[in-house]
Amino acid sequence: MTSTLPTAVSSGLRSLFAPRGIAVVGASRNPGKLGAAMARSLSGFADGGNYLALVNGRDDTMYGSVAEAAKYGPVDLAVICVPAAACPDVLAEAAAAGAGAAVICGGGFAEAGGPGVEYQRRLAEVVRATGIRLLGPNTSGFLAPHAGVIASFVPGVAQVRPGKVAVVAASGGVNHALAFALTEAGHGLSLAVGLGNGVDITAPDVLDHLADDSETGAVALHIESVPDGPRLVASVRRLAARRPVVALVVGRHDVGAFAASHTGALATSWRTTRAALAQAGAVLVDDERELVDAVGALAVTRARPVADPGVGVVTAQAGPGLLLLDDLRGRRARVPELTAGTQATLAELLPPLTFQRNPVDTGRPGPELGAVLTAVGADPGVDVIAGYALHEPDAVDIVAAAREGSTVGVPLVLGLGGTGEAVVRGRRALLEAGIAVAADPRGVAAATAALLTDARARTRTAPATDHTVVPTGITGGHDEAEAKDLLDRLGVATMPRRACSDRAAAHTALAELGGSVAVKLLDAAVLHKTEIGGVHLGITTPAELDTALDKLDAAEARRYLVESMAPAGVDLVVGARRDPVFGPIVLLGLGGTTAEALADVAIRLAPLAPAEAAAMPEELAGRALLGGWRGGPVLNPADLARVVASLGTLLTANPHLDEVEINPLRLTAHGLVALDAVIITREADDAHPDS
Amino acid sequence: MTSTLPTAVSSGLRSLFAPRGIAVVGASRNPGKLGAAMARSLSGFADGGNYLALVNGRDDTMYGSVAEAAKYGPVDLAVICVPAAACPDVLAEAAAAGAGAAVICGGGFAEAGGPGVEYQRRLAEVVRATGIRLLGPNTSGFLAPHAGVIASFVPGVAQVRPGKVAVVAASGGVNHALAFALTEAGHGLSLAVGLGNGVDITAPDVLDHLADDSETGAVALHIESVPDGPRLVASVRRLAARRPVVALVVGRHDVGAFAASHTGALATSWRTTRAALAQAGAVLVDDERELVDAVGALAVTRARPVADPGVGVVTAQAGPGLLLLDDLRGRRARVPELTAGTQATLAELLPPLTFQRNPVDTGRPGPELGAVLTAVGADPGVDVIAGYALHEPDAVDIVAAAREGSTVGVPLVLGLGGTGEAVVRGRRALLEAGIAVAADPRGVAAATAALLTDARARTRTAPATDHTVVPTGITGGHDEAEAKDLLDRLGVATMPRRACSDRAAAHTALAELGGSVAVKLLDAAVLHKTEIGGVHLGITTPAELDTALDKLDAAEARRYLVESMAPAGVDLVVGARRDPVFGPIVLLGLGGTTAEALADVAIRLAPLAPAEAAAMPEELAGRALLGGWRGGPVLNPADLARVVASLGTLLTANPHLDEVEINPLRLTAHGLVALDAVIITREADDAHPDS
Repeated sequence: MTSTLPTAVSSGLRSLFAPRGIAVVGASRNPGKLGAAMARSLSGFADGGNYLALVNGRDDTMYGSVAEAAKYGPVDLAVICVPAAACPDVLAEAAAAGAGAAVICGGGFAEAGGPGVEYQRRLAEVVRATGIRLLGPNTSGFLAPHAGVIASFVPGVAQVRPGKVAVVAASGGVNHALAFALTEAGHGLSLAVGLGNGVDITAPDVLDHLADDSETGAVALHIESVPDGPRLVASVRRLAARRPVVALVVGRHDVGAFAASHTGALATSWRTTRAALAQAGAVLVDDERELVDAVGALAVTRARPVADPGVGVVTAQAGPGLLLLDDLRGRRARVPELTAGTQATLAELLPPLTFQRNPVDTGRPGPELGAVLTAVGADPGVDVIAGYALHEPDAVDIVAAAREGSTVGVPLVLGLGGTGEAVVRGRRALLEAGIAVAADPRGVAAATAALLTDARARTRTAPATDHTVVPTGITGGHDEAEAKDLLDRLGVATMPRRACSDRAAAHTALAELGGSVAVKLLDAAVLHKTEIGGVHLGITTPAELDTALDKLDAAEARRYLVESMAPAGVDLVVGARRDPVFGPIVLLGLGGTTAEALADVAIRLAPLAPAEAAAMPEELAGRALLGGWRGGPVLNPADLARVVASLGTLLTANPHLDEVEINPLRLTAHGLVALDAVIITREADDAHPDS
Repeated sequence: MTSTLPTAVSSGLRSLFAPRGIAVVGASRNPGKLGAAMARSLSGFADGGNYLALVNGRDDTMYGSVAEAAKYGPVDLAVICVPAAACPDVLAEAAAAGAGAAVICGGGFAEAGGPGVEYQRRLAEVVRATGIRLLGPNTSGFLAPHAGVIASFVPGVAQVRPGKVAVVAASGGVNHALAFALTEAGHGLSLAVGLGNGVDITAPDVLDHLADDSETGAVALHIESVPDGPRLVASVRRLAARRPVVALVVGRHDVGAFAASHTGALATSWRTTRAALAQAGAVLVDDERELVDAVGALAVTRARPVADPGVGVVTAQAGPGLLLLDDLRGRRARVPELTAGTQATLAELLPPLTFQRNPVDTGRPGPELGAVLTAVGADPGVDVIAGYALHEPDAVDIVAAAREGSTVGVPLVLGLGGTGEAVVRGRRALLEAGIAVAADPRGVAAATAALLTDARARTRTAPATDHTVVPTGITGGHDEAEAKDLLDRLGVATMPRRACSDRAAAHTALAELGGSVAVKLLDAAVLHKTEIGGVHLGITTPAELDTALDKLDAAEARRYLVESMAPAGVDLVVGARRDPVFGPIVLLGLGGTTAEALADVAIRLAPLAPAEAAAMPEELAGRALLGGWRGGPVLNPADLARVVASLGTLLTANPHLDEVEINPLRLTAHGLVALDAVIITREADDAHPDS
């Protein structure tokens, strides 16, 4: 897989993240200046025996230029601390002097508007012309602790230890906030990068670099906007195949104006970005605390790949255990009842008064805790153990017990409650023993959920293809009858129907179809038939048909669709469309205005295999409606997955097809049936600019 | 208000939480024993010059009995560390010796089943007979740091400092977990109590005690189950009038079996408990981390009471500011654009490249931060400032800046990101200056949301009454026509209708009502008309009416309801019923199966004033549907509130009325109209046990 990475990318970022020598351009003796802070922060690199050159043309004690500095040692990386207007020339000079990479922390570029836009354009020009790799501008730098490169002006970075977690953040501030939070939680870092304006280096570059970085155990990814969706997805997919990626996407709510001012880019669709990252193998989290919990856990342990993993909950105190169980249930973790064998083992270990079915309540913890964890881990239904205990060293050596419990090979997430240095030391010792650690039940639940999501994601092999044979060359307008003919060719069930050019044909259709029919206006130019009185349902008699046809004629119908009424059921909406950032996507939602108002929708990138689409209904808040709600029909996810996947394949195979939607696709006792469908092609789109 | 508290309650808990002397019964020399741990933990009380008596009949170096111990000093509190079977006698002995209170930490009572049930019953008997107040059994004790009483066997409790936060937890483990988490966040505690099995002392007792405790600034309340709803509500209401209460309710998801094993009590309805506590003035949180953020903030600062408070967001780093803004929007905090005057002031303080409308992005923070905070706090639209900064002491003295920004009187919540001792010291200094502190954007958002909720809650005066004049003496069965007649008397709009005893009357009704009508089976014994074909809509002609009546007759209709069809709109469900724990409640939801599947419902205790009911629609996830969705009608919350309040008043005034439900109550362009209504009285209930 390494061979698929462009060589230039890797080598460029090695100059950045593992340079042989560094020049700080605009270094300063004034301690308040950026150039002074950067030189101070990088002094550890020099202390390690590496070449650190301070460059300032107006200071005799420093080198006059990068070229001069390069005479006395290797300058792979230029840390540029000069005003925005001067940055393009300094960058060009660094490239000419042989630097492979540069970082510009200062602001005053595109995000500031005015002349900054031009400065940023010129930076891009230098990058293009010279091939130098540029991090920033408008970032607070990066930390590569293993290499001793602490290129950041923020105090406290010296306390960040080398370790296994990498941070790739859109923002320099978030990069530091995460690096500090991870440090506080006991973790060391392999790399921490804030991308800033991303003139050259964007998230995919750093993710590609990390795919080859053996120091990194897991990656925390913070996303504000996505300039190139397919490239990000490809990088995450590549990286996630080697080490876990945990992603936090900003912009669930409306933060557009401020976001635009921040990076000069509009936030990408939050839902689509999350769906794309999850599909590529990332674990998604909702906030920065859970990002720390999740990536910290995945950096030390992973569950084996399994489609429906189970959690064994072990708690030394019932109350926190109840918080943990409640939280795990909210994350839809499966907490299976332990086998009779496991329960028998536990019964020998624990006093009879405790709950032992799962959760397992040990009562006040004692030396038997290790054996309890081992027994739970050995249960065939348990793939992850989630535990909680207050720190009670007099009662149990928690580190020894957790080590013992880990021998069975099932990962353990342990919440260790308490305060003071002894607890901090205990948590670190657990991490060093490969046990994921949290401070509270919520942290345990978040970390456990991350292990479960990761375990599930790894059962999905490389994206399989959808084998639906789809029509190609679709162009022009489609009325409902033509759209349904297309669905027939895709294997999507529709009701018997007749397209009728006149009233006589409609009456014949009523007679032939029998029973109750729907009568609709048939016109490719009309997208919203119901609104103009173009749909009449439950017609059984010629008289009723004539009344309906009168109304259709009043709505200027020239053709009619007569179709057998479908059985009752639960309405879904499925569709495929082109996302401006990620390209073809498929969507699934429940029908009706409530689901629409809640934006209760599952999204995937297309094309996708039916197996991948089969998990979409589970993501809907209203999924209970598809599971035999009040005696109604029960969805077979595979049936729905075939429909969704085939729409995605259809869109992908037809460049002129902009959107296809089945609304509603009804779940009936006899399966799924498409009741209405709309196809929008580029040409049809152009003809109806307001549709 | 104090005078309404029973004297016995207060004095009893003073014996517990501020005893003059303590006897540890079952004290031990064996360091692994509970009695030894308790004696050790309480040694600080003796060190403070107070009387601590160790009692053990089998150890010559200790007192032989509580009575003996009481000869040499005051024994207000007995800490009982003997096996469960011996506890009742020891409790009786302590009471006889004059102890006003006791705590039993051990388990083996009702939660364990078997003989434990009887032991617990005997404890209750001693309490009843003697009046001694009992905490526990099955708890890990309590901490009263100001009084030097650390009655807990959990290590680490010595590090809990005296301070302003009180914890009242259902579980001893959660009590300790919260006490430690608060300590880690820099807070001191005034009291921390785990209730355990709650044989005598339950949450309301401790809340009543805290209402008079001047050391306490804010109270964290953890609830697993509610034995007496009205009593809990009364205590929270009393306490919240004096100091903020933040509540975490367990059991959002199904944790019933484990919960029952834990405390011997079934978890109370999560939704109803939350609604009742919020109505009583508590701030509700979703997890234990946010409980710490919220109660920690409210212990040091509160916003002034205001119905729709605004937040000024000030950030030193744009990326974390974006996380903060996104999170605040998710909590529906209002972040108003600052006035032109404020923006002009900020323009003089800040470089032009930053965003200054709100959020205010300071760029890298400098000495101007204090002035920026002051300017934002002085903005007329800002009631709380939510800030974030990485710890950069070289750039700004954050404590001085925050102090300066606080002088304007608007509370400040400040996230201070970083790692190491200097950051911990900074956070403590901020807390001591009355500034709420968090470590990350999410913590800032949670704390800010708590201040906003508290500010809103305090604008609600003492519960006003609903002045709807309601019928009383309601008994027996009601058919739909009778139910709607009742709604008419409540002032709830219904459609014109006729109750018809035969087909001729139905035809007359059709003619008189004109237009399109609904025809329904009219029978108080039939609760679900639609399911048996008892509802026919959109009837306009005598022929259609006859067809419908034929079908009703087939469903054994003896009477019919003919009613004008209502205009289209958005369907709601409103009702009032009796909750087994809290008594009369009202409910509001959206109509349709999706809303039902999502359990999207707002709840209040009844009776309630319309002003209180008016906020209910805002709690619905699908509230967008009531705000002119796709050109539809816009709800006037006051109209809906009158309906909801009148149902609550009706239920409260009619002891035989079990439930009244309007389903649907339709929001139309002309206002709200009830389309169907069901009244269930105790008698009707008994007649239809399976309804």
